[in-house]
Amino acid sequence: MKLLVGVDAGASKTEAVAVKVGGACAFHIAGPANPAVQGVEEASRSISEAILGSLRSLGTSTTPDAVFVGAAGVVSREISEELRVRVAQHVGVDAGRVYVFEDLIAAHASVFLAGDGIVGILGTGSSAYGTYRGATARAGGWGHLLGDEGSAYRVGVAALREVLACLDGLESCSELGIRLARRLGFKSVSEVLRYVYSSPSSKGSVASIAVLVFEEARRGCTGALEIIRNEVRSFSRYVTAISRRLGMERVRVGFVGSLYCYNLDLLKPLLREELTAYLGREVEIVDQVIRPCCGALVAGLAALGATSLEAVVEQLVTCCRYSCPP
Amino acid sequence: MKLLVGVDAGASKTEAVAVKVGGACAFHIAGPANPAVQGVEEASRSISEAILGSLRSLGTSTTPDAVFVGAAGVVSREISEELRVRVAQHVGVDAGRVYVFEDLIAAHASVFLAGDGIVGILGTGSSAYGTYRGATARAGGWGHLLGDEGSAYRVGVAALREVLACLDGLESCSELGIRLARRLGFKSVSEVLRYVYSSPSSKGSVASIAVLVFEEARRGCTGALEIIRNEVRSFSRYVTAISRRLGMERVRVGFVGSLYCYNLDLLKPLLREELTAYLGREVEIVDQVIRPCCGALVAGLAALGATSLEAVVEQLVTCCRYSCPP
Repeated sequence: MKLLVGVDAGASKTEAVAVKVGGACAFHIAGPANPAVQGVEEASRSISEAILGSLRSLGTSTTPDAVFVGAAGVVSREISEELRVRVAQHVGVDAGRVYVFEDLIAAHASVFLAGDGIVGILGTGSSAYGTYRGATARAGGWGHLLGDEGSAYRVGVAALREVLACLDGLESCSELGIRLARRLGFKSVSEVLRYVYSSPSSKGSVASIAVLVFEEARRGCTGALEIIRNEVRSFSRYVTAISRRLGMERVRVGFVGSLYCYNLDLLKPLLREELTAYLGREVEIVDQVIRPCCGALVAGLAALGATSLEAVVEQLVTCCRYSCPP
Repeated sequence: MKLLVGVDAGASKTEAVAVKVGGACAFHIAGPANPAVQGVEEASRSISEAILGSLRSLGTSTTPDAVFVGAAGVVSREISEELRVRVAQHVGVDAGRVYVFEDLIAAHASVFLAGDGIVGILGTGSSAYGTYRGATARAGGWGHLLGDEGSAYRVGVAALREVLACLDGLESCSELGIRLARRLGFKSVSEVLRYVYSSPSSKGSVASIAVLVFEEARRGCTGALEIIRNEVRSFSRYVTAISRRLGMERVRVGFVGSLYCYNLDLLKPLLREELTAYLGREVEIVDQVIRPCCGALVAGLAALGATSLEAVVEQLVTCCRYSCPP
C-alpha cells in the first residue's frame, strides 16, 4: 500500500490526511460530518471533500489504496455501511477500500498508536475506550440525558443549576452561582431556561459555560473546583471499569478532547488523583501524540494487520505530531 | 356572570368545564394543547373544541360570559396573547372575555380554591407555586435538562443510570439495576441509549420507567426507595424556598400530578418527612379537591375579584370533586 488516507469526522469539522508511504503527508479540513446529526448524505459529502482535498494537497491524482474513516455518530452497522458506500462513490474508489469505524478508535490510536491503553474523551460529551492484549472494552458514552460525566456539557449543567438556585432564591445559592449569573448576564430563571431550551444548539450552549467554571476554579473559587472534581470522579468510574474488565496489570491512560486540552493544568492532576484513588495504584497518564485523522490511519492499518505499520507510524509521528495547545 | 367556562390545557389532553352559575356543570375532553409542543394554532383548536364541547354538553347555545384557560407551555406573554385571540375567534366570543394563564395557577386553585398555600406539581416534570396574603412565588420548573426534581422523568433517569451501570460493568451496579434491566429487557448499553435517544417522545419514554421504580420500592427494594427519597428531598428545596420567600407562618402544601396521584402511598409520607426536616416544623398536607379545569375557573374568577366567587366555588366543589384514584 503506497497511498493511504485517514479521516477524523466529527460534529464540528472533518480532517483528512493523505500519506504517500515513505514520502509526504498532506492535510485538508472540511465541514461537519456526524451522520447522527447532519444525516448520512451530508456527512459522506464532507468526508469525501476532506479526502479529495488532502489528495489534491499532496499533488496526486492516484486512487488511494485504503481510506480509513473514524467517525462520530456511527451508532449502527447500517449507518457505517451506508457511509462507507457513499464515500467510496463520491471519492471514486472501490468500496472495499473504504473502512469506517468509531471516532473512539481513532482517538485511541492518536494516543497509543498501535499499543494498549485506555483513552478518555473529554469534549462536549464524554466516553472511554480501552484495548489490552487483543481485547477491547468501552464504558460511558451515555449521552447528555443519562451520562457525559466529566464533559463540558455536564460541567455546564452543574454551573447553570448553581445560577438557577440563586435566581430561584434557594438556600443552596452559592458564591459561584452569584458570580456566574452576573458574568452571564442572567437576571431571572426564565432567562436561563430560554437560553437552554430555546437554543438551536442547546448542547453547545450549555457546554460553552464550562469555560467560565474553569476560569472561576483558577481564581480559587472552591465551588467551581468542586464541580470539576465531581465530574472527574464520576468519569473515573468508567476508566476503572475498563481497566478491571480488561485485567490490565499496568494502567496507561490518555485523554483527548477540547475540554481536556484547554484545561490540562486543572484536569491532569485531578484525573491522576481520582484514578489512583479508584484503582488503588499509580496510573500512567500518556499524552496524545498524533492528530486524530492520523490515528484513524494507524488504527485501520493495525486492524488490517498491515506489514508496513511500523514504518507508517514512524512517518506519521513526524508529520502528524499533535499536542494540546500550550 | 351566568355562564362560565374553565379549561385545563396540557400536553396530553384538554379538559373543559362549562358552568351555569347556580345551575348545572358539564365537561368535555379534547386533544393535547401545549403551545410549546403542538404549536399555538393546534393548541388553540384543541382548547376551542373542549370549550364548545362542554357548552354543547350543557345544552346551551349562549355565549359564555368568561372563559378561563390554565395552559401548560405558556412560556411568554406573546404566546398567551396569541392563544387568547385565537381561542376567542374559534369559539366566537369577544377576546376580552378570554383569560389565559399558566396551568400552575389552575393547579393551585384545584387544591386551595381561592385560599393560600403552596402547590407542588409532580408529573412528568415538576414545579412549585405558592400564594400568601396577596403575594405569589414560584420555584423549580427548570425542565428536564436542569431540574424536574421529584418528577417521573427524573426518577426514570436515575433508574436508567442504575441499569446502565450494570450493563457497563461498573462497580456501582446494584440489585435494582439488575432487576430493572431484566424487567425492561435491556441486554446492552446501546439498547438503552437507542430507547432514550431514538424515541420520538424521549421524555415520555424515560418517565414511563418511574412506574417500575415505585413497584420495586413497594417490594422493599432499598435502592428504588433511595431514588425516590432523593428526588423528594431535592424537590422539597423548592417548596421550602417558596414558604420562606412568602414568609408563611403556617405551611399548607398540596400536590397534584400523575406521579403523585398514583403513588400517594409512598410519596405523601416521604414528602411530609422531608418537608418537616427542611422547614423545621410540621407542614399540613392538603388534598386536591376539584378538577384542574374547575381550578382554572376559580383562579380566574378570584383574579377578577368576582362577587359571585363563593357561590361558584361551592357549586364547583360539588360537581368537580376530584381526588387521586384509590
